[in-house]
Amino acid sequence: MIDLYTWTTPNGRKISILLEELGVAYQAKPINIGKDEQFTPAFLAVSPNNKIPAIVDHDAPGGPLSIFESGAILTYLADKHGQFLPASGAARWKVLEWLAWQIGGLGPMLGQLGYFLRATDKTPVAIERFSVECTRLLGVMDRRLKEVDYLGGDYSIADMAAYPWVSAMAPMLKATPIIAGWDQMTGIHRWLETLAARPGVQRGMLVPQV
Amino acid sequence: MIDLYTWTTPNGRKISILLEELGVAYQAKPINIGKDEQFTPAFLAVSPNNKIPAIVDHDAPGGPLSIFESGAILTYLADKHGQFLPASGAARWKVLEWLAWQIGGLGPMLGQLGYFLRATDKTPVAIERFSVECTRLLGVMDRRLKEVDYLGGDYSIADMAAYPWVSAMAPMLKATPIIAGWDQMTGIHRWLETLAARPGVQRGMLVPQV
Repeated sequence: MIDLYTWTTPNGRKISILLEELGVAYQAKPINIGKDEQFTPAFLAVSPNNKIPAIVDHDAPGGPLSIFESGAILTYLADKHGQFLPASGAARWKVLEWLAWQIGGLGPMLGQLGYFLRATDKTPVAIERFSVECTRLLGVMDRRLKEVDYLGGDYSIADMAAYPWVSAMAPMLKATPIIAGWDQMTGIHRWLETLAARPGVQRGMLVPQV
Repeated sequence: MIDLYTWTTPNGRKISILLEELGVAYQAKPINIGKDEQFTPAFLAVSPNNKIPAIVDHDAPGGPLSIFESGAILTYLADKHGQFLPASGAARWKVLEWLAWQIGGLGPMLGQLGYFLRATDKTPVAIERFSVECTRLLGVMDRRLKEVDYLGGDYSIADMAAYPWVSAMAPMLKATPIIAGWDQMTGIHRWLETLAARPGVQRGMLVPQV
């Protein structure tokens, strides 16, 4: 059994999508970040960075294993179950480079854009900076998805990492002119529709139920 | 032979440090981001995200392999050479979670803090936001380094990922009160001194020579 410490945020949904796609038994343990539950000593022991997601795999070889950071958890689970990440060769590194691109670039930059757009104290310089960088990053993603079906080539943990972020931001991107050319990013739109139709993605996006 | 596309920035130095520590033959190919060389079609073919670092391994099994994103490159080279990243077990995931923490958290947030501190158009709201988050992240790092010698337990690619960022920012953090408690972060200071004394780290930090 796997314990998944998570919340109703994009980084948490990456892991519930993968667990649903794998059909692995797990228990979602909601950590309400609105109530600062990520700062309890019990959670800190699992996630020293005080952030969701984190997992404890009670069936890991050698005894219970806790892992934090979505990129590490996705890689661990995919390798353990031999799915959504090739075991070796060039295909493995295509997935891992696009996964790294999501966790080091697209995720943090969309996160900052969302924060400054929602902030009551408006800072045009910051909104401009993160709009420009997100427009660039989404352009890179769209160019890729006009060449191949999925970020890593075949469907993989790289897509599961990017989907919760891009789908969560899509309504805002459509409603405002903040991302230049969003309507023409047909590679991303096609990919969003393909992932949204997957039952595992649909179930994963509903976790945790609170 | 490995081609390393890089520049005099923390993300580039992560890879030159690892290559120097491994003693692997490589050729540094400077991409002058001050002259927009990252936007040339030749570089785009290697790095679709238009950023350094990227590598081409001409000796990869199956033919030349290009990889972008520092997190993916570090993992690839460590796995290929069987050093600085355990092949399996809990020790492997300790390294990979702290690597993911650096590339998804510490790196992007220190990068934003540095940008807004240097910007001529001062935005106190942004400086405050990234100061608070960097103080939190460096506190997490210091707590870890007061418990263990290196981020992943033993010396690993997680340390090589964090060192160029923290060492580059250290003079600014010391000179300004922007990071509360920096002087008391003795776990980080001890770790910085340990890494700075390694010949491979010293050589890697001088790449590329321009």
